[in-house]
Amino acid sequence: MTLKILTAQMLPAIESELQKQVARLAQPRTAVYHEMLTYHMGWTGEGAGPEATGKRIRPLMVLLCAASLDQPAWKKALPAAAAVELVHNFSLVHDDIQDNSNKRRGRPTLWTKWGVPQSINAGDGLFVLSNLAVSDLADSYPADTALRAARVLHETCLDLTRGQHMDIAYEERLDLNEDDYWPMITGKTAALLACCCQTGAILGGADPAAEAAYRDFGTALGLAFQVQDDILGIWGDEALTGKSAASDLLEGKKSLPVLYGLGKNGPFAQRWRSGPITPADVQSVAQTLANEGGIDYAQTKSKEWTDKSLASLELAAPQGKAGAALRELADKLLGRKA
Amino acid sequence: MTLKILTAQMLPAIESELQKQVARLAQPRTAVYHEMLTYHMGWTGEGAGPEATGKRIRPLMVLLCAASLDQPAWKKALPAAAAVELVHNFSLVHDDIQDNSNKRRGRPTLWTKWGVPQSINAGDGLFVLSNLAVSDLADSYPADTALRAARVLHETCLDLTRGQHMDIAYEERLDLNEDDYWPMITGKTAALLACCCQTGAILGGADPAAEAAYRDFGTALGLAFQVQDDILGIWGDEALTGKSAASDLLEGKKSLPVLYGLGKNGPFAQRWRSGPITPADVQSVAQTLANEGGIDYAQTKSKEWTDKSLASLELAAPQGKAGAALRELADKLLGRKA
Repeated sequence: MTLKILTAQMLPAIESELQKQVARLAQPRTAVYHEMLTYHMGWTGEGAGPEATGKRIRPLMVLLCAASLDQPAWKKALPAAAAVELVHNFSLVHDDIQDNSNKRRGRPTLWTKWGVPQSINAGDGLFVLSNLAVSDLADSYPADTALRAARVLHETCLDLTRGQHMDIAYEERLDLNEDDYWPMITGKTAALLACCCQTGAILGGADPAAEAAYRDFGTALGLAFQVQDDILGIWGDEALTGKSAASDLLEGKKSLPVLYGLGKNGPFAQRWRSGPITPADVQSVAQTLANEGGIDYAQTKSKEWTDKSLASLELAAPQGKAGAALRELADKLLGRKA
Repeated sequence: MTLKILTAQMLPAIESELQKQVARLAQPRTAVYHEMLTYHMGWTGEGAGPEATGKRIRPLMVLLCAASLDQPAWKKALPAAAAVELVHNFSLVHDDIQDNSNKRRGRPTLWTKWGVPQSINAGDGLFVLSNLAVSDLADSYPADTALRAARVLHETCLDLTRGQHMDIAYEERLDLNEDDYWPMITGKTAALLACCCQTGAILGGADPAAEAAYRDFGTALGLAFQVQDDILGIWGDEALTGKSAASDLLEGKKSLPVLYGLGKNGPFAQRWRSGPITPADVQSVAQTLANEGGIDYAQTKSKEWTDKSLASLELAAPQGKAGAALRELADKLLGRKA
């Protein structure tokens, strides 16, 4: 309930800050460039609207963490909230090119509409805008605070590209096991959520111990969330996830259950290595992986990270309404009944 | 002579700073990612060496400008020098993918060796490293100086992506004229040189008027240099430029003489619009463009920007040996006998 009230205040402010940052490109001769970004952000073009923007979980995390330390701080933290969302979207634009994906949030991807060269450039543009957004913190915070937030963002981006490198490199490898999973997913998913929580903590004025606890909360939350997503991607209910169940197996995605199964070197690994999985045998392969303990293992791991996440959150001890909202959001993302 | 002595001191320091920045990726599981960057930077792989690294003009500019205000400042400015060179190289990696270019500085381009997806990511990585490098200024400068330098770099990167957007968009357009040239080339070439000179000025402690003069020097130098390169790309002596003369016409490059010629709507424009220029008719097309005043016009413009560049440099009034070296470097880049 508190989450709903705060979200209703924060989401329009996030959207407005994002639009302000992207408007830097609304200049003569780059109207199309600006249009590409407003399309990707979900504001213009076919299918524009809340479905197309995504949930803005990352900027919301920044603001809730800041507000849970210092309630009025969230408005000053808006440029940082925009920055993390711009980084996330830069990575999506390039990811869609790298993965040859046609759809993103139910709409044609940027490169299918404007071609690969312009879309590589548009992704670069979103990245530049994230740097400019985080620079704007210097208008409302002491210079060394602004520098620290920028530094955390840049380190995070390095982690993101390392995760992305591993993900692409894994496509051609058959010798993987679960040890290969955690470094990749820490970079691809958990690093940015950790950055959101740490940045919010910095901008809320956390002491070093609390800042570390907020960051650990974000990391563990990201890992728990990703593992659950991996489970749903193979055994999920289509109605719940909005994507066809088992589609991750068809796409050959290196999710935790798959890498666990490959490490087992049993019937699942044999089937995986014999060639791409087809719609005709996807159900039986999912069953084979479940029989070898794929679901149980992933659920155990998800539970471990969920517990770590909630323990870190209690250590961070978020205060006030934003603190309550943060607990609610964590429960929601971790699939727990609030 | 002074330039030679200072360059001999500065170039090894630049190379060592660049290697330190890129070494952030020398971590477990991303050895190949690190290798991609050391290959692109010219340090490893086939053909590694001075030919492959490029001339490092941009970082040299940063250091000479800083030293021309405050001689010992150049060592402290090294992270900024590395940052501009990393930005330049990020743009080259993505440019080679966007242009489908097979060769860069005589060697196979990154994407031809490691594929497009990994090379998009490696370009992103060079960009991230430039952000981290510029953040390092906070170790040696007051926080607000470090923030200002970062801000200038980010604004420059936005200009770069705007120039790149125009360049790609122009490929499909036949209705261009010289008015379309300057905004594109200001973003693609002049913005980064302006950033180098301004950043050096900031880090050397220039007052606002001198900082503006250094920046104007860089902008005009970049434009003058680019126009000369455009002339050589059509009418240059193959032996001098190292690329086949008139190759820019074969590639359909939107250089100043070409856009001038298109604006004339004469025989050259007619020929250009009738289809791609072939090796068989490239010499006659170059002659047609020369007859319509293409060389004269470009030379006039190059002279104008050269004069503006040198006037701004005198206004900046660079001091000491670095000041002398900067004048020498400007003369060299502007093709004037020193």
